[in-house]
Amino acid sequence: MAKVTPRTLSGFMELPPKEQMKLEKMMGVLRDTYSLYGFTPLDTPVIESAEVLLAKGGGETEKQIYRFQKGESDLALRFDLTVPLAKYVAGHYGELSFPFRRYQIGKVYRGERAQRGRFREFYQADIDVIGDGKLDILNEAEIPAVIYETFTRLGLKKFRIRVNNRKLLNGFYAMNGMSEKAGEIMRTVDKLDKIGAQKVKQLLIDEVKMLPDKSENVLDFMAICGTNAEVLERLEMYRGMDATFDQGLDELIVVTKYLQDFGVPEENFAIDLTIARGLDYYTGTVYETEMTEHPEIGSVCSGGRYDNLAEYYTDKQLPGVGISIGLTRLFYVLSEQGLLSDEVVTAPCDALVLPMTEDLAPAVAAATALKKKFKAKIGYADKIGVPFAVLIGEDEVNEGVVSVKNMQTGEQQKMPAREAAACIKAAMEARSRAKVIRA
Amino acid sequence: MAKVTPRTLSGFMELPPKEQMKLEKMMGVLRDTYSLYGFTPLDTPVIESAEVLLAKGGGETEKQIYRFQKGESDLALRFDLTVPLAKYVAGHYGELSFPFRRYQIGKVYRGERAQRGRFREFYQADIDVIGDGKLDILNEAEIPAVIYETFTRLGLKKFRIRVNNRKLLNGFYAMNGMSEKAGEIMRTVDKLDKIGAQKVKQLLIDEVKMLPDKSENVLDFMAICGTNAEVLERLEMYRGMDATFDQGLDELIVVTKYLQDFGVPEENFAIDLTIARGLDYYTGTVYETEMTEHPEIGSVCSGGRYDNLAEYYTDKQLPGVGISIGLTRLFYVLSEQGLLSDEVVTAPCDALVLPMTEDLAPAVAAATALKKKFKAKIGYADKIGVPFAVLIGEDEVNEGVVSVKNMQTGEQQKMPAREAAACIKAAMEARSRAKVIRA
Repeated sequence: MAKVTPRTLSGFMELPPKEQMKLEKMMGVLRDTYSLYGFTPLDTPVIESAEVLLAKGGGETEKQIYRFQKGESDLALRFDLTVPLAKYVAGHYGELSFPFRRYQIGKVYRGERAQRGRFREFYQADIDVIGDGKLDILNEAEIPAVIYETFTRLGLKKFRIRVNNRKLLNGFYAMNGMSEKAGEIMRTVDKLDKIGAQKVKQLLIDEVKMLPDKSENVLDFMAICGTNAEVLERLEMYRGMDATFDQGLDELIVVTKYLQDFGVPEENFAIDLTIARGLDYYTGTVYETEMTEHPEIGSVCSGGRYDNLAEYYTDKQLPGVGISIGLTRLFYVLSEQGLLSDEVVTAPCDALVLPMTEDLAPAVAAATALKKKFKAKIGYADKIGVPFAVLIGEDEVNEGVVSVKNMQTGEQQKMPAREAAACIKAAMEARSRAKVIRA
Repeated sequence: MAKVTPRTLSGFMELPPKEQMKLEKMMGVLRDTYSLYGFTPLDTPVIESAEVLLAKGGGETEKQIYRFQKGESDLALRFDLTVPLAKYVAGHYGELSFPFRRYQIGKVYRGERAQRGRFREFYQADIDVIGDGKLDILNEAEIPAVIYETFTRLGLKKFRIRVNNRKLLNGFYAMNGMSEKAGEIMRTVDKLDKIGAQKVKQLLIDEVKMLPDKSENVLDFMAICGTNAEVLERLEMYRGMDATFDQGLDELIVVTKYLQDFGVPEENFAIDLTIARGLDYYTGTVYETEMTEHPEIGSVCSGGRYDNLAEYYTDKQLPGVGISIGLTRLFYVLSEQGLLSDEVVTAPCDALVLPMTEDLAPAVAAATALKKKFKAKIGYADKIGVPFAVLIGEDEVNEGVVSVKNMQTGEQQKMPAREAAACIKAAMEARSRAKVIRA
């Protein structure tokens, strides 16, 4: 028979069993932590009507989207979890209690040019809190606090959630008479990390057509750094010149205070005035998260406050705040950096029962059908990485015991079956506390 | 602004929060039980090359498939989890340890005509054991044993796994000289439940063109029923007439014995000679699972033994046995029948902390930002179905305690915060043992 090559499309992640178990463990931690903070799980279709999915329309998104006809229907695959959330909240408005706190972990699709570390199908893991008409600023601090807890439970230590406020930025540009150019300026300032202050200044003058002293103002502002208290103190010097700026500063002060109250250490969050995120969506606090030893990776978790989740679907004012972990990319990066722990149990089971005789008590009768020799059996246990092997030979049957072999240490001990279960359970519980990321 | 109606496509399930939590709970039970039996999780792309997905080609499947072009690529959405498994095992053959035991819970897509209870996007939850060249028959008993354990953990009681063997059927048709018509006969016999023996007999004579005595033979055979021991005894009377039949009977005897050894009660599994499943794929034991009080629903979990998982991709002989739960359909049916328990905790959290003052100790400082009045706060706790409310007012702050209100009983008690945590934890642990299905 002619064979078809069993290939997987490029840009689509498909893992070997042990790696898949690490990803599953990460997803389990996300589900548990998000639930602990009172977020309820949501699942929306992967396929939506193109009209619904592209209600906002335009831009880069439309080029990347998987869109196709099925019968008379114009369909598309979701490219993020925010648009489906907007559709869901607008469509189920009457059934929901607000603030509506939901998490969603699901695959999204973007037909980007395939390249190493870029995926066309990838998991996002989102949390959002949606208010009905209004939403307390407390939520803008709680969201990064949940991310801090999530990363900590995953075992990630060297990360920093960078926080800024769009009102602060918009106010700053307004007080300098640069509101119209704010978009262009932010896109240029975004290159600070890559090309440095001097080149950014030149671009601001040459391409954005700013006066040298105005571009100097921008760079001075963006250069504000130090502890969070120091940054806030420097920002106080701009107070009183623009109402929006002042409001943004007040919000930043409150969010910073609450983040401390939520127990997030200062080393894991920092005010960073260079963070802006998208231009037309976020309206208050914005977040990016960097791995401090790998800034080249970019943000692994981003989001912010928005005033109008579902304006394309409903007249209801639905402000919210949310954040998204690019899970597939984060997993890929951690794996590439060797930061995934092999301590995590990745065997499909804790112990493999290896009967060494043909005829045993009914309890293990089923297992007698195995016909391989001892060495092959132990080899299988070892190959699939099972931590324990339970050996049942003639001797064990006669003595009414089993032999428990620790596959890591090679140690082997006879004991009654019931004791063996407790012994394996205790050892596995200790191991199950291992974190999936060793960073 | 012109609004787009936030509709969800017909045939795509999208649940309210509380229902979603029940589905998540079911998925959690499936993951845990499958893992307990040593199945390793697998995740494959939703999108595959159409050439790979349709390697087997033809039939009903091809009409229902979601297939589309993206750039130069001819793509399709997976319509089951078996073809991706075949692709995976063939493609990763060198990296896997055999027998390879995997589970996969994922969405699949079939553009069927939309009708009530029929879904175009639905979850399947599959387990398979794949051997390299050979596979012990023990696995053909373990697979339904895992399903028994899974359904029992879900809380489902009134179900029966119906077991048959394709060799037995093929052998029976051979000994009657009806091998060529076996396909047609099986399709006709499949209608027994619906139209009864007399009409099936008439169809066998009129449409399959069988002689009346031969059709009588078929109906006599299919009518064999009773306890598993009785059925096996009746089948012994056919022994010696066809080698394939005898082999099938031996396998059925072994599978029945092992199922007992695995602790599956006879009320939950039955030999049923009318079960055949697909014509060209299964080669040994086959399964269907009915809800005994709702036979009209059809099989909620089906599968069987096959000899050649991946023949379209590789020359390797990869025999296996697997079973699939149609999770979305099962959930829909349970929900329609009122069999989903509301005992299961479906609140997004166990307790809601309700600060009743503006200024509190740092530990709850964050929560002080809530500005609503008491009634509205308690109403929110009630609306989202939280089991406990923790009230922190002036009195509580002064006394160094919190008030814990059981939202089910209305009972309210003051205690130190630490004690409250233990008290809520104990109550929730008791509740968490509630099963998701109350049948």
